[in-house]
Amino acid sequence: MKRIGIMTSGGDSSGMNTAVRAIARAAMDAGLEAFGINYGYKGLVEGNIFNMNSLKDLDTIVNRGGTILYSARFPEFAERETQLKGIEQLKKFGIDALVVIGGDGSYHGAEKLTKLGFNSIGIPGTIDNDIPGTDFTIGFDTAVNVCVDALDRVTDTARSHQRHFVVEVMGRGAGDIALWAGVATAADAIVIPEREYDIKAIAEHLEENRKHGKDYGIIVIAEGVMSAADFKEQLDQYGDFDSRAITLAHVQRGGVPTAKDRVLAARLGDYAIKLLLEGKGGLAIGIKDNQLVAHDIIDTLENHKHHTDTTLLDLNDRLRFK
Amino acid sequence: MKRIGIMTSGGDSSGMNTAVRAIARAAMDAGLEAFGINYGYKGLVEGNIFNMNSLKDLDTIVNRGGTILYSARFPEFAERETQLKGIEQLKKFGIDALVVIGGDGSYHGAEKLTKLGFNSIGIPGTIDNDIPGTDFTIGFDTAVNVCVDALDRVTDTARSHQRHFVVEVMGRGAGDIALWAGVATAADAIVIPEREYDIKAIAEHLEENRKHGKDYGIIVIAEGVMSAADFKEQLDQYGDFDSRAITLAHVQRGGVPTAKDRVLAARLGDYAIKLLLEGKGGLAIGIKDNQLVAHDIIDTLENHKHHTDTTLLDLNDRLRFK
Amino acid sequence: MKRIGIMTSGGDSSGMNTAVRAIARAAMDAGLEAFGINYGYKGLVEGNIFNMNSLKDLDTIVNRGGTILYSARFPEFAERETQLKGIEQLKKFGIDALVVIGGDGSYHGAEKLTKLGFNSIGIPGTIDNDIPGTDFTIGFDTAVNVCVDALDRVTDTARSHQRHFVVEVMGRGAGDIALWAGVATAADAIVIPEREYDIKAIAEHLEENRKHGKDYGIIVIAEGVMSAADFKEQLDQYGDFDSRAITLAHVQRGGVPTAKDRVLAARLGDYAIKLLLEGKGGLAIGIKDNQLVAHDIIDTLENHKHHTDTTLLDLNDRLRFK
Amino acid sequence: MKRIGIMTSGGDSSGMNTAVRAIARAAMDAGLEAFGINYGYKGLVEGNIFNMNSLKDLDTIVNRGGTILYSARFPEFAERETQLKGIEQLKKFGIDALVVIGGDGSYHGAEKLTKLGFNSIGIPGTIDNDIPGTDFTIGFDTAVNVCVDALDRVTDTARSHQRHFVVEVMGRGAGDIALWAGVATAADAIVIPEREYDIKAIAEHLEENRKHGKDYGIIVIAEGVMSAADFKEQLDQYGDFDSRAITLAHVQRGGVPTAKDRVLAARLGDYAIKLLLEGKGGLAIGIKDNQLVAHDIIDTLENHKHHTDTTLLDLNDRLRFK
Repeated sequence: MKRIGIMTSGGDSSGMNTAVRAIARAAMDAGLEAFGINYGYKGLVEGNIFNMNSLKDLDTIVNRGGTILYSARFPEFAERETQLKGIEQLKKFGIDALVVIGGDGSYHGAEKLTKLGFNSIGIPGTIDNDIPGTDFTIGFDTAVNVCVDALDRVTDTARSHQRHFVVEVMGRGAGDIALWAGVATAADAIVIPEREYDIKAIAEHLEENRKHGKDYGIIVIAEGVMSAADFKEQLDQYGDFDSRAITLAHVQRGGVPTAKDRVLAARLGDYAIKLLLEGKGGLAIGIKDNQLVAHDIIDTLENHKHHTDTTLLDLNDRLRFK
Repeated sequence: MKRIGIMTSGGDSSGMNTAVRAIARAAMDAGLEAFGINYGYKGLVEGNIFNMNSLKDLDTIVNRGGTILYSARFPEFAERETQLKGIEQLKKFGIDALVVIGGDGSYHGAEKLTKLGFNSIGIPGTIDNDIPGTDFTIGFDTAVNVCVDALDRVTDTARSHQRHFVVEVMGRGAGDIALWAGVATAADAIVIPEREYDIKAIAEHLEENRKHGKDYGIIVIAEGVMSAADFKEQLDQYGDFDSRAITLAHVQRGGVPTAKDRVLAARLGDYAIKLLLEGKGGLAIGIKDNQLVAHDIIDTLENHKHHTDTTLLDLNDRLRFK
Repeated sequence: MKRIGIMTSGGDSSGMNTAVRAIARAAMDAGLEAFGINYGYKGLVEGNIFNMNSLKDLDTIVNRGGTILYSARFPEFAERETQLKGIEQLKKFGIDALVVIGGDGSYHGAEKLTKLGFNSIGIPGTIDNDIPGTDFTIGFDTAVNVCVDALDRVTDTARSHQRHFVVEVMGRGAGDIALWAGVATAADAIVIPEREYDIKAIAEHLEENRKHGKDYGIIVIAEGVMSAADFKEQLDQYGDFDSRAITLAHVQRGGVPTAKDRVLAARLGDYAIKLLLEGKGGLAIGIKDNQLVAHDIIDTLENHKHHTDTTLLDLNDRLRFK
Repeated sequence: MKRIGIMTSGGDSSGMNTAVRAIARAAMDAGLEAFGINYGYKGLVEGNIFNMNSLKDLDTIVNRGGTILYSARFPEFAERETQLKGIEQLKKFGIDALVVIGGDGSYHGAEKLTKLGFNSIGIPGTIDNDIPGTDFTIGFDTAVNVCVDALDRVTDTARSHQRHFVVEVMGRGAGDIALWAGVATAADAIVIPEREYDIKAIAEHLEENRKHGKDYGIIVIAEGVMSAADFKEQLDQYGDFDSRAITLAHVQRGGVPTAKDRVLAARLGDYAIKLLLEGKGGLAIGIKDNQLVAHDIIDTLENHKHHTDTTLLDLNDRLRFK
């Protein structure tokens, strides 16, 4: 193996650049050449590929949000013909293996390439933490901290004004961001796709709080359940909470990555190269129980699902004001 | 003069607590007693008033968002009878003068009390920066920095995905937050109530940018113009910008105040007590041309308007990518 | 069991308050009374103890640095007689079990009480991450992020001025903070107590970097090795690196805790109460391989040592500029 | 005028890059070519100069710490011969005017060039806020906010442990950073070069505080007075304050600039080009009483001094705990 390709794909997440740097540096350290592929699978098929070994400033991206390799939607990559074009480009550049950083969709692309015989490794990079085969994804910790900062601010205002805020956080179909951010900020309720919610019980809880001296509150809701605005509308039917709906939106994606996301990105990037050097491939890598792990990417995607730790919801119910 | 009352009113802003602490401390330093009035004019009328001289931990609020004196809506204070009840409460507690931290509405309350003969001073505390008689209000700098942080993050994502974001910031009828945040983050367009916008020209500018190599962009819009969602809808009629609408919402209010807001709050709080000790009152105080100033509160509200520095818009037009 | 005591002890770390809140709330949720003990073992012996169930504002400490229960040095607690006095006080207040948040020294106090028959549980709260029986301690993640922020800033200056900085971080005898912060910021060298360093090799590496186009650099050194100033002096004997020494010092302890530290604190606090309710005690609890764990506190302290993950050093050597 | 040169010089400060971007963009907007000069006066003399008009990513530096144009020590520029060499290079590149962002030393360079007939404008860029002819310098607000964040953290620890911290901040000969950071964090004492300090009075104040219920404290000291370690040693002779000395050091220079520093940098950069287009030059520009101002650079340096607002010290004395 002489040359490896690096790609980011899907929604950007903080720490992707840290991973790009780690993969490239680990490759160079092993005497390989690292090639950056711009604009995800679209750039792959179009041959938007460049040699990274000459980049002197690579270290400066270690703390930069977004992705210097860009990302792009490219549904056409679902077609076999397009996949073959991608492999053609990789061969044209003499690239022997591909490391893709991204979420669900990115993994499926890597799976396809693997099935067609091109060695690919998937690194979990998404704020949603919804990738099977790993406890944490790159960008999740940063996104949670952004939400926590926002929730802290909103709590100041809620408390000053005796208001209730319904705050919507990202996560696609997963409640992980909502759970972590809610537990970290002493939310009065957390609403996630993984568990049925009882809006009447939530309203009663808020009413109870008022009787016991807490006249404000925060409900954190995952986008996978419904919008903050819709939830607020429902809630208002059960009482007058002087409620407001907020959507934290895309501020959760970018920005300087946290230490945890950076260290995770560094470890996973290095691990991908290690595995490739050992002749392995067709893998989805991640961190499980604090250990780096590698699973067959096809099996991972077809037979496994991300497991959201819903015990955090019970924890929050125990710890919240009452 | 022996006792002064301190109140926060209207929407909370970061640095209100710093001002509360400054007023109370300056009063104590001058041998006065400081009384906190909870829940704004509502608490005033209800006599929700307490002596602050015994608070040992007052300094710990110097960096705390929100307001420990709470705030509340109270339209009833527009009535003369209710105002007289407020004055009655103040006299009951032996309070000789009142310092109110807040925005427009809070100032009007202070104006009414002054007109009825009760000495009141208004300190500008609002994120909107829309108070006449001062260049800056307490909380504006923090709000702008929150927006700048959010815009930096969104810019990472916009750039990674070749997208355009319409980002709505607060400011009520004023464009100050939008202007400062937009200039600070190299926005492609800033839309404010103080100047007619030309959506066709903005769309053309974004198209031009693409031709010159910038395929992403940020438009900062003040809430006083319209919602981000509405602007996005308009924009989409002039081209396909893969646009998204974001509303930064209430995260702009709370949180740890910036150094500038804290120093401003400390200076204004101290200045209010100084003026009261000199036998003055019925004033709106502020900072103009970097100097502390005091104006007649009635004249200020009736004859003056906040002036938004729209030269920042021209500045941004010169500096933006083209 | 009806009443539990909560204490913080040793050096403060961010998230201690989050843990205090979690223990108290979990206790209340289970129908227990929570008692706060001020000033660590000193306050215990002096009976500086108060009922927390009436605290309405307990949730507001979820994001506050330091510890509302204070801490204090108290070497006298090594004596059996003093320990007995502590137990006497606990009995006087009707307290059945004690939960202590702190580092090494705090654990030893809890161990002593356990040996004397008083049920105690230790929760790892220290920035140093040097407690046996847990992968992570409360406050470590925040401290690392503070260091990362500082190192990012210093890197800006190093790069602008072609300088080298030796930056000393905390950690007592452990290199964990240095390792995580160094890996996260692309340090050129990380010097920790767990591994012999070769200053000549480091100097040569920096010289090599210059030849390859990187004329600045950062060395992160753990306080357990030596001071930044001493290391700089040594380094300067091997070349002219226009070097500066910096000690990050006590800014690493306080401040708003990160999401990770808050969630860890919430889980551990809740877990301590769960164990006590199950009739268990005499335990050191923690998180291992992402699972909550409880070990015999005597065995943990006498037979186990914290394991620093030195593979991060090798990782950094592979990933650094060369 | 067709071409302008842009240079950063002296110690880096946050917002320098924002100013570089503003100057370059304003120049381009006026149809000029902008040339970047690397490594300050050293690079000027060596002809390390490049055309910036082709930089597509210029906007991405708007929020980046340090300076992309680098800086370097170059005492040789005090010599007339070296200055003439610099002018020769400028002429070689067809550059008609020079804009220098920096502190005191940088201004002196610009003054020399002006005296030799080469049109130069100085923009105040230093964290120290010690430049005559301006109320604020670019980087000051960011540095103060970094100090405030650090002091908030240290205060958490001081309070938890009943300790006193002596915290040294930068500022060269000026006390501005110390004053602003001290006022913003409710420091117990601020020690600056502009006013004699009375260590006995400070010690007595801390002792008094203890009697009145505050058993911890913070002293902010400007580096221009003495080191934190030396002050602590002196202080300890007047009582046992369980004191610690901390030096915030170079973390004050880099990092993401605040909104205020960015807007100031944008305005000053744009203003420099406006003046040059009007045929003016030989100027030191700045912001006075919230207005952009331009003064003769020779007169400014020879006849004026920066004025530190020592009323902030009196303000702090009134507001501090007692």
